[in-house]
Amino acid sequence: MKAVSQDRANGSLYLAEVPVPQPSKGEVLVKMTASPINPSDVSFLRGTYVHRPKYPVIPGIEGSGTVIASGGGLLPGLRLGKRVACSSSEGMGGTWAEYMVTSAMRVIPLSKTINMEQGSMLIVNPMTALAFMHIAREGKHKAIVNNAAASVLGQMLVKLCGKEKLPLINIVRRTQQVNLLKAAGAKYVLNSTDKDFEEQLKSLSHELNATLFFDAVTGDQTEKLLSAAPFGSRIIIYSNLTGGPFQAEPRLLIQGNKSIESFYLGIWSLKRSIVQTLKTARQVQALAGNELGSFIKAKYPISQAQVALDGYIENMTGGKVLLTME
Amino acid sequence: MKAVSQDRANGSLYLAEVPVPQPSKGEVLVKMTASPINPSDVSFLRGTYVHRPKYPVIPGIEGSGTVIASGGGLLPGLRLGKRVACSSSEGMGGTWAEYMVTSAMRVIPLSKTINMEQGSMLIVNPMTALAFMHIAREGKHKAIVNNAAASVLGQMLVKLCGKEKLPLINIVRRTQQVNLLKAAGAKYVLNSTDKDFEEQLKSLSHELNATLFFDAVTGDQTEKLLSAAPFGSRIIIYSNLTGGPFQAEPRLLIQGNKSIESFYLGIWSLKRSIVQTLKTARQVQALAGNELGSFIKAKYPISQAQVALDGYIENMTGGKVLLTME
Repeated sequence: MKAVSQDRANGSLYLAEVPVPQPSKGEVLVKMTASPINPSDVSFLRGTYVHRPKYPVIPGIEGSGTVIASGGGLLPGLRLGKRVACSSSEGMGGTWAEYMVTSAMRVIPLSKTINMEQGSMLIVNPMTALAFMHIAREGKHKAIVNNAAASVLGQMLVKLCGKEKLPLINIVRRTQQVNLLKAAGAKYVLNSTDKDFEEQLKSLSHELNATLFFDAVTGDQTEKLLSAAPFGSRIIIYSNLTGGPFQAEPRLLIQGNKSIESFYLGIWSLKRSIVQTLKTARQVQALAGNELGSFIKAKYPISQAQVALDGYIENMTGGKVLLTME
Repeated sequence: MKAVSQDRANGSLYLAEVPVPQPSKGEVLVKMTASPINPSDVSFLRGTYVHRPKYPVIPGIEGSGTVIASGGGLLPGLRLGKRVACSSSEGMGGTWAEYMVTSAMRVIPLSKTINMEQGSMLIVNPMTALAFMHIAREGKHKAIVNNAAASVLGQMLVKLCGKEKLPLINIVRRTQQVNLLKAAGAKYVLNSTDKDFEEQLKSLSHELNATLFFDAVTGDQTEKLLSAAPFGSRIIIYSNLTGGPFQAEPRLLIQGNKSIESFYLGIWSLKRSIVQTLKTARQVQALAGNELGSFIKAKYPISQAQVALDGYIENMTGGKVLLTME
């Protein structure tokens, strides 16, 4: 089969001819149709992702396709022949290939109303957005904060919070992104490059009692969030876009009863039952036409993965870039 | 009345003559008998404690005495005439005085078996030690880690963990402290100045599946704990003995599903009911003769508070220094 490959962190992408992988028990073979490029793929390709791969590696974290073989077991059998959204399993090949083997736990049957292109983008961003809403509800938070808010995930949160009437403070770093989010219906948008950003965040988060902060930026911004946050706040780190460490004053945590936690979809999902996951997946699909839909700005065949990636990195906030396999 | 006073952070202690405070509703007036000097008092006097006082201030976080007046209300009435352990309320005067007014929630009746000197040391260290055991049980942790382990609190943890058969990894920074803890029955003692300290901690915490780390040191040590800790670990910061900020790599948290939380006894107690607090207080008193007793190495009248403090700071691990009021 043809598969996108990378030989080392930051290495160029090229198309390789490799054997079609064979599923073992509990696994399925998916004939791939489409796959998006997400910020987490960019981390993966840079070697700064949660999991460090063994090289050469086939990248690609999520996608869509059809299950054409089962490796044995109840769940794989149930999925056979189904159109699915899927994500890759650690240590196995990724979605940027004509075929992929993954755990049957990592495929979600698609309803008829979802086409393969929207179906390829159902896991990483929509499931994360719903997970964040779940964490907010479970912790009885009155309002939440998200930075890197102009991302696809950020825009989904704007819509979900609007729907559930949960106040959301969006943090971006450019005026253009402030306008984008306001146009998308966001009520509170702060620009982290404003001189008085920290005072604005402190005053607004206290006014709304926003005690749940989703932090994809980290670096210097983490301590600013921690310092501005009201008593009892939780900072949840879910990405490290700056790539750097954060620093914090212990007193800020002790005095303010604050914590710094972490979120990773793969780990979060593991803690939930397959029933809960499928329930979330149904919710995602029900909302895919509205709150959780993604705008596709460009499509490339997998042979042009490097071109697609370069274009995506140039402007990560304008919509999704898809790779297609057929 | 006579009261120890301080005019600014790091300022000298002196004995002042001030009016006896009057209790309001929900408060009691305690005629003080004794009060220890704890590490948290040292933080308070340096101005680096959780709460920053208004100066001039009467220091002293815990002590013992007799309730001689009620400001009105059910609980204050019940406490009238009782020998009590007590702690000061934020924004009000401290325990290093002949009389103190505090919330009736902050006094605990003493059983007959506890004398006033042991009674003066029942709250800060023993309640914290029991709170740590509670957190460990509640989180179903298989083993725990504590640094600054040669402290009075650290030694109580050694005894409680021994009693409850919960493996405890003690971290100290001097050979002398290693010996002290081993003599007190500690099985695992690591010296943070050892060249291979991080590898030792990593290997031992993985072997024992120690996923709960109590961190009183912070600064550089926090990231070492975070890095050595097994998947899913929680670092709980409860003091900042180094006085400096900590730094951490976001990836360590995300990849390892780890969190950095905080503990402050005053906040922790507030989340629990008075019934739970009194239950803990009974446990403390039952154990005061054994696991939770403190060795008193010196006693000074409050007129010599500065001398007592200087002696305590010179050697904080040799036993408690008490101030007496009568």
